[in-house]
Amino acid sequence: MSTIDWSSSEKKIAKQAFDAALKREYAALLDQLKYSAAKAENRDDIWDIHDYLTEQRKLIDQKYDYRYSQLMFVFGVLLRDKWLEEKDLAGLAEDKLEHIRSIAYF
Amino acid sequence: MSTIDWSSSEKKIAKQAFDAALKREYAALLDQLKYSAAKAENRDDIWDIHDYLTEQRKLIDQKYDYRYSQLMFVFGVLLRDKWLEEKDLAGLAEDKLEHIRSIAYF
Repeated sequence: MSTIDWSSSEKKIAKQAFDAALKREYAALLDQLKYSAAKAENRDDIWDIHDYLTEQRKLIDQKYDYRYSQLMFVFGVLLRDKWLEEKDLAGLAEDKLEHIRSIAYF
Repeated sequence: MSTIDWSSSEKKIAKQAFDAALKREYAALLDQLKYSAAKAENRDDIWDIHDYLTEQRKLIDQKYDYRYSQLMFVFGVLLRDKWLEEKDLAGLAEDKLEHIRSIAYF
Protein backbone atom coordinates (compact mmCIF):
# COMPACT_ATOMS: atom_id res chain seq x y z
CA MET A 1 0.00 0.00 0.00
CA SER A 2 1.68 3.15 -1.20
CA THR A 3 0.52 5.33 1.70
CA ILE A 4 2.50 3.11 4.04
CA ASP A 5 5.43 1.97 1.95
CA TRP A 6 7.89 4.48 0.63
CA SER A 7 9.96 3.58 -2.41
CA SER A 8 13.57 4.65 -2.50
CA SER A 9 12.77 7.42 -5.00
CA GLU A 10 9.91 8.61 -2.76
CA LYS A 11 12.22 8.60 0.24
CA LYS A 12 14.61 10.81 -1.68
CA ILE A 13 11.83 13.25 -2.65
CA ALA A 14 10.51 13.22 0.91
CA LYS A 15 13.92 13.99 2.37
CA GLN A 16 14.48 16.87 -0.04
CA ALA A 17 11.03 18.34 0.65
CA PHE A 18 11.46 17.97 4.39
CA ASP A 19 14.88 19.64 4.32
CA ALA A 20 13.65 22.41 2.03
CA ALA A 21 10.74 23.25 4.34
CA LEU A 22 12.99 23.23 7.39
CA LYS A 23 15.49 25.47 5.64
CA ARG A 24 12.73 27.95 4.68
CA GLU A 25 11.34 27.95 8.17
CA TYR A 26 14.77 28.62 9.69
CA ALA A 27 15.42 31.39 7.18
CA ALA A 28 12.14 33.05 8.18
CA LEU A 29 12.92 32.59 11.87
CA LEU A 30 16.38 34.08 11.40
CA ASP A 31 14.88 37.10 9.63
CA GLN A 32 12.33 37.53 12.39
CA LEU A 33 15.02 37.30 15.07
CA LYS A 34 17.21 39.87 13.33
CA TYR A 35 14.27 42.22 12.87
CA SER A 36 13.05 41.87 16.46
CA ALA A 37 16.52 42.25 17.96
CA ALA A 38 17.30 45.30 15.85
CA LYS A 39 14.21 47.13 17.07
CA ALA A 40 14.36 45.86 20.69
CA GLU A 41 14.64 48.67 23.21
CA ASN A 42 14.23 47.29 26.70
CA ARG A 43 14.01 44.27 28.97
CA ASP A 44 10.46 43.41 27.94
CA ASP A 45 11.56 43.26 24.32
CA ILE A 46 14.44 40.95 25.26
CA TRP A 47 12.14 38.52 27.05
CA ASP A 48 9.53 38.71 24.32
CA ILE A 49 12.24 37.54 21.91
CA HIS A 50 13.26 34.81 24.32
CA ASP A 51 9.65 33.65 24.73
CA TYR A 52 9.18 33.67 20.96
CA LEU A 53 12.30 31.55 20.39
CA THR A 54 11.24 29.14 23.14
CA GLU A 55 7.87 28.68 21.45
CA GLN A 56 9.35 28.33 17.97
CA ARG A 57 11.91 25.78 19.16
CA LYS A 58 9.17 23.65 20.63
CA LEU A 59 6.95 23.97 17.55
CA ILE A 60 9.75 23.13 15.13
CA ASP A 61 10.86 20.15 17.21
CA GLN A 62 7.30 18.84 17.30
CA LYS A 63 6.49 19.53 13.66
CA TYR A 64 9.55 18.13 11.92
CA ASP A 65 9.08 14.47 12.70
CA TYR A 66 10.81 12.38 10.05
CA ARG A 67 9.21 9.03 10.78
CA TYR A 68 7.63 7.56 7.66
CA SER A 69 4.54 6.82 9.73
CA GLN A 70 4.18 10.58 10.40
CA LEU A 71 5.46 12.03 7.17
CA MET A 72 2.18 12.50 5.30
CA PHE A 73 0.73 14.38 8.24
CA VAL A 74 3.94 16.44 8.49
CA PHE A 75 3.80 17.29 4.79
CA GLY A 76 0.10 18.13 5.04
CA VAL A 77 0.81 20.66 7.77
CA LEU A 78 3.81 22.10 5.93
CA LEU A 79 1.74 22.45 2.77
CA ARG A 80 -1.07 24.12 4.70
CA ASP A 81 1.36 26.58 6.31
CA LYS A 82 3.11 27.34 2.98
CA TRP A 83 6.50 25.93 3.96
CA LEU A 84 6.03 23.49 1.11
CA GLU A 85 4.46 23.80 -2.31
CA GLU A 86 2.89 20.89 -4.12
CA LYS A 87 5.73 20.88 -6.62
CA ASP A 88 8.14 20.01 -3.77
CA LEU A 89 6.26 16.73 -3.41
CA ALA A 90 6.03 15.86 -7.11
CA GLY A 91 6.98 12.26 -7.65
CA LEU A 92 5.25 10.82 -4.60
CA ALA A 93 2.55 8.23 -5.31
CA GLU A 94 -0.84 9.81 -6.08
CA ASP A 95 -2.57 8.27 -3.07
CA LYS A 96 0.10 9.75 -0.80
CA LEU A 97 -0.42 13.15 -2.41
CA GLU A 98 -4.18 12.89 -1.97
CA HIS A 99 -3.72 12.04 1.68
CA ILE A 100 -1.32 14.97 2.14
CA ARG A 101 -3.70 17.37 0.37
CA SER A 102 -6.60 16.18 2.46
CA ILE A 103 -4.66 17.18 5.58
CA ALA A 104 -3.46 20.46 4.08
CA TYR A 105 -6.82 21.64 2.78
CA PHE A 106 -9.07 20.10 5.36
CA MET B 1 22.60 46.37 64.21
CA SER B 2 23.17 48.27 61.01
CA THR B 3 23.95 45.20 58.89
CA ILE B 4 20.43 43.95 59.58
CA ASP B 5 18.42 47.13 59.88
CA TRP B 6 18.11 49.46 56.95
CA SER B 7 17.25 53.10 57.61
CA SER B 8 14.89 54.81 55.23
CA SER B 9 17.76 56.75 53.62
CA GLU B 10 19.71 53.48 53.21
CA LYS B 11 16.66 51.83 51.66
CA LYS B 12 16.50 54.65 49.14
CA ILE B 13 20.21 54.32 48.29
CA ALA B 14 19.85 50.53 48.05
CA LYS B 15 16.89 50.77 45.71
CA GLN B 16 18.69 53.24 43.44
CA ALA B 17 21.85 51.09 43.35
CA PHE B 18 19.84 47.93 42.70
CA ASP B 19 17.89 49.55 39.88
CA ALA B 20 21.04 51.09 38.38
CA ALA B 21 22.82 47.73 38.29
CA LEU B 22 19.83 46.02 36.76
CA LYS B 23 19.52 48.76 34.15
CA ARG B 24 23.22 48.42 33.23
CA GLU B 25 22.95 44.65 33.03
CA TYR B 26 19.93 44.84 30.74
CA ALA B 27 21.62 47.45 28.55
CA ALA B 28 24.60 45.10 28.16
CA LEU B 29 22.33 42.13 27.47
CA LEU B 30 20.42 44.14 24.87
CA ASP B 31 23.68 45.11 23.14
CA GLN B 32 24.82 41.49 23.17
CA LEU B 33 21.50 40.30 21.74
CA LYS B 34 21.58 42.87 18.95
CA TYR B 35 25.17 42.01 18.11
CA SER B 36 24.58 38.24 18.12
CA ALA B 37 21.38 38.47 16.10
CA ALA B 38 22.96 40.76 13.52
CA LYS B 39 25.77 38.31 12.85
CA ALA B 40 23.65 35.12 13.13
CA GLU B 41 23.69 33.03 9.97
CA ASN B 42 22.02 29.70 10.63
CA ARG B 43 19.94 27.54 12.92
CA ASP B 44 22.81 26.84 15.31
CA ASP B 45 23.28 30.58 15.79
CA ILE B 46 19.57 30.98 16.52
CA TRP B 47 19.61 28.31 19.20
CA ASP B 48 22.87 29.59 20.66
CA ILE B 49 21.12 32.94 21.15
CA HIS B 50 18.12 31.19 22.66
CA ASP B 51 20.33 29.20 25.04
CA TYR B 52 22.20 32.35 26.01
CA LEU B 53 18.97 34.21 26.79
CA THR B 54 17.64 31.26 28.78
CA GLU B 55 20.81 31.25 30.88
CA GLN B 56 20.84 35.02 31.37
CA ARG B 57 17.18 35.07 32.38
CA LYS B 58 17.83 32.48 35.04
CA LEU B 59 20.96 34.24 36.29
CA ILE B 60 19.30 37.66 36.46
CA ASP B 61 16.26 36.25 38.23
CA GLN B 62 18.48 34.54 40.78
CA LYS B 63 20.86 37.44 41.27
CA TYR B 64 18.47 40.34 41.68
CA ASP B 65 16.90 39.37 44.97
CA TYR B 66 15.61 42.49 46.72
CA ARG B 67 15.08 41.07 50.16
CA TYR B 68 16.92 43.11 52.78
CA SER B 69 18.26 39.86 54.22
CA GLN B 70 19.97 39.18 50.88
CA LEU B 71 20.88 42.65 49.77
CA MET B 72 24.45 42.85 51.04
CA PHE B 73 25.29 39.61 49.31
CA VAL B 74 23.56 40.84 46.15
CA PHE B 75 25.50 44.12 46.24
CA GLY B 76 28.76 42.24 46.90
CA VAL B 77 28.26 40.15 43.78
CA LEU B 78 27.22 43.18 41.70
CA LEU B 79 30.29 45.10 42.90
CA ARG B 80 32.54 42.13 42.10
CA ASP B 81 31.06 41.82 38.61
CA LYS B 82 31.31 45.60 37.95
CA TRP B 83 27.59 46.21 37.65
CA LEU B 84 27.99 48.51 40.63
CA GLU B 85 30.72 50.86 41.72
CA GLU B 86 31.39 51.72 45.34
CA LYS B 87 30.09 55.22 44.76
CA ASP B 88 26.66 53.75 43.97
CA LEU B 89 26.54 52.53 47.56
CA ALA B 90 27.79 55.72 49.22
CA GLY B 91 25.62 56.58 52.20
CA LEU B 92 25.15 53.05 53.50
CA ALA B 93 26.44 52.40 57.02
CA GLU B 94 30.16 51.61 57.11
CA ASP B 95 29.67 48.11 58.52
CA LYS B 96 27.31 47.31 55.64
CA LEU B 97 29.88 48.58 53.17
CA GLU B 98 32.60 46.48 54.79
CA HIS B 99 30.40 43.42 54.58
CA ILE B 100 29.62 44.14 50.93
CA ARG B 101 33.31 44.69 50.10
CA SER B 102 34.28 41.47 51.87
CA ILE B 103 31.94 39.59 49.51
CA ALA B 104 33.05 41.52 46.44
CA TYR B 105 36.78 41.20 47.02
CA PHE B 106 36.88 37.83 48.73
